[in-house]
Amino acid sequence: MTRNRFTVAGGGPVGSLLAILLGRHGYDVGLFEGRPDSRQTSIYQGKSINIALSDRGWTSLQKIGISADTKADAIPMYHRAIHGIDGELSKLPYGKQGDAIWSVSRGGINEQLLDIADAEPNIDIYFEHRLVDVDFETANAAFEVKGEQQITVEADYLFGADGAHSKVRRLAHKLPRFSYSQTYMPQSYIELNIPANPDGSHRLEKNALHIWPRKDFMLIALPNPDGTFTCTLFLNFSGTPSFESLRERVDVERFFNENFADAIEYLENPVDVFLEKIASPLFLVQVFPWSFNRKVALIGDAAHAIVPFYGQGMNCGFEDCAELNRLIELHDHDWNRIFPAYENARKPNGDAIAELSKRNFVEMSDLSGDKRFQLRKKIEAKFHEAFPDLWTPLYSMVTFSPEVPYSEALRVGDEQKRVMDQIMQLPEIERDWDEQFVMDQLYKLATARL
Amino acid sequence: MTRNRFTVAGGGPVGSLLAILLGRHGYDVGLFEGRPDSRQTSIYQGKSINIALSDRGWTSLQKIGISADTKADAIPMYHRAIHGIDGELSKLPYGKQGDAIWSVSRGGINEQLLDIADAEPNIDIYFEHRLVDVDFETANAAFEVKGEQQITVEADYLFGADGAHSKVRRLAHKLPRFSYSQTYMPQSYIELNIPANPDGSHRLEKNALHIWPRKDFMLIALPNPDGTFTCTLFLNFSGTPSFESLRERVDVERFFNENFADAIEYLENPVDVFLEKIASPLFLVQVFPWSFNRKVALIGDAAHAIVPFYGQGMNCGFEDCAELNRLIELHDHDWNRIFPAYENARKPNGDAIAELSKRNFVEMSDLSGDKRFQLRKKIEAKFHEAFPDLWTPLYSMVTFSPEVPYSEALRVGDEQKRVMDQIMQLPEIERDWDEQFVMDQLYKLATARL
Repeated sequence: MTRNRFTVAGGGPVGSLLAILLGRHGYDVGLFEGRPDSRQTSIYQGKSINIALSDRGWTSLQKIGISADTKADAIPMYHRAIHGIDGELSKLPYGKQGDAIWSVSRGGINEQLLDIADAEPNIDIYFEHRLVDVDFETANAAFEVKGEQQITVEADYLFGADGAHSKVRRLAHKLPRFSYSQTYMPQSYIELNIPANPDGSHRLEKNALHIWPRKDFMLIALPNPDGTFTCTLFLNFSGTPSFESLRERVDVERFFNENFADAIEYLENPVDVFLEKIASPLFLVQVFPWSFNRKVALIGDAAHAIVPFYGQGMNCGFEDCAELNRLIELHDHDWNRIFPAYENARKPNGDAIAELSKRNFVEMSDLSGDKRFQLRKKIEAKFHEAFPDLWTPLYSMVTFSPEVPYSEALRVGDEQKRVMDQIMQLPEIERDWDEQFVMDQLYKLATARL
Repeated sequence: MTRNRFTVAGGGPVGSLLAILLGRHGYDVGLFEGRPDSRQTSIYQGKSINIALSDRGWTSLQKIGISADTKADAIPMYHRAIHGIDGELSKLPYGKQGDAIWSVSRGGINEQLLDIADAEPNIDIYFEHRLVDVDFETANAAFEVKGEQQITVEADYLFGADGAHSKVRRLAHKLPRFSYSQTYMPQSYIELNIPANPDGSHRLEKNALHIWPRKDFMLIALPNPDGTFTCTLFLNFSGTPSFESLRERVDVERFFNENFADAIEYLENPVDVFLEKIASPLFLVQVFPWSFNRKVALIGDAAHAIVPFYGQGMNCGFEDCAELNRLIELHDHDWNRIFPAYENARKPNGDAIAELSKRNFVEMSDLSGDKRFQLRKKIEAKFHEAFPDLWTPLYSMVTFSPEVPYSEALRVGDEQKRVMDQIMQLPEIERDWDEQFVMDQLYKLATARL
């Protein structure tokens, strides 16, 4: 095999993982990141940004040969801790006993992957190299070095792993027949912080994802290893209440006191932060194709920017890498076959997790308000326990079943919804839900449908 | 009322109609078009470009007070003339006796509307003024005059009626929270021509839309008043057969001979034209919002570029104008209320006709190949005749029922499809379709569902 050279634009978690897998397949890899090396300069300014990793992410890392020690700093969250408006706290498990999603530091996992990439002999990492242009015919690219001179990097292939605002993707707009969609959600968000106790312990239950669901808006909190929680407030951009309508201190104070009474004692200056920060928009990007001239391709958020409500963004990006890894072996390094196979395999899954993530805002933010929703989950969980091969709840398929593609999870989930709609229409289901005939009926419907 | 000033960017049919309605409401209107005045210079180079107008278009013109003499040069098409691959010709009516869609010359209707606009005292029309920039805060705009100096045009409000490639829309990309989607179809197209007979008569049946449906591709022909037909070949961009795969003369000749044997004797140098022309892509554009800062708005193809398979593009644009006309009266010239009401009323309909147009490629191109589809249409038509208030076929809702919004037509059409799927599953439906029990069953299903 000729030793082909790859340019990977973007040194985030997905770009770093991609560089590693390409390097381990014997390719020469140049990994280019616009920002400085976070391992040397604290670009996060002490702020914890955490994201959720789940089985798809871990499995993908394993498939690429990265062992589980990336899991060491991750905090398992076994259930949703739901904070009612009256302060009542309830638990809703994520899956079966022991199933967890993991709160990981984005910076931490990124640095771990950069360290692994650094140790590979045929990977060169360049920081403060900002992508300026891509030649989609040759895969050569122009980078601006530390905001000064411009260099041209020659390569055989180029991957854009440069995130939701991908420059590679934006440059691809000039190519013919490029289908593109960007969709803004009505919600925007700001991040808030809950500090640790003086002894470094967590002020709220550590092994849970905390949710204050308020229907049109919600607050969530994910634990960090240092005892803090990173919180996110999702709220409409306009309307009432919204970031636009809440501009006066007295209104913002009332908003927090009325809606997050049991959180406000922990949150660090939420009213100041709310008034100072500009809320970030939430958007989805979908494109096709994901590859151009069998020379340049997109991966991770660059190919499928989604909203965070399913906690699957990084998982999906890691899965892109694992699939690419599989296809390199399957097609024995023939990139004329790998590129089309890669985009055809992953595009339907990127679209499916985009759709699922959008829908999950309603589930998360309306969760505790709706007792019938909780009952539905309880019936599903019971049925799943009785017939694990026949029925896996949608959340578990997406989160704990990496063998089920996202697109399949979406399809089966829609079928399950139709079945459960019928079950929930049984008269007196609130009273009878634990009776055998409900399980029998569910079995009948499920076997007919699924 | 203060006499507000409007800039309308784009002097096509929708822009001209919009200028007329604004002018007649007492506003000062500047109508700006990048190209020269087609009434003075033949920019179409003798080529007929025709489009379909139907009841929505005519009704919208009437509502704005434009009388039916625009219809004088239009040619009614009462049915589809379907050309089988074996040369067999069959007819499929568009609706009830007398229902027709109309082939109109795009240039002709545009010039008629420009003439009407010219006659309005408070409309000024500027040709060869190419839009360069828009200030979305003030509605001022910069135009390049005849490719030379640049001028600034001040206004209170600005409408982008500048078509599928709208510059106003492209400039709106820089605004926050602008949701945008462009989707390419697998098909591209070229236009071909069937000349008139020496005596100026039509070589094919005049009052029909001719279709050569070949499943993955199709040829269509629309009549012009001068005896010619404008034909469009829709064919995949890549794959087999496709514009990409057919590059050799011998292959193109075989393609035409095998698929369009009964057309090739009429078509003017189809093989030369096929080999010379670059096929145009087919794309859809969907955006939201349609208005910005209650100062600038999009209308017609600029707001909703669709594919031509339902013949509704210009109809939809005219309907945008009619709705705006209604809202100006309803909200008594309060543009703070008109803009949001306009986009909220029209966006769902723009989305619906985009979806319907996409789907209709399959109906058109697969039409004659599927006898069961024809049977389905026949059963629907019979039921519609018996219960006109209960069931109007989707095509008729879209084309002949301007009182039914596109979004409602889409919704009802989907329900009808579910009902007809059940009817078509009756055993021996091919034999029994004309029996009374089929109508009874259809009545039962339809009344339960619709």
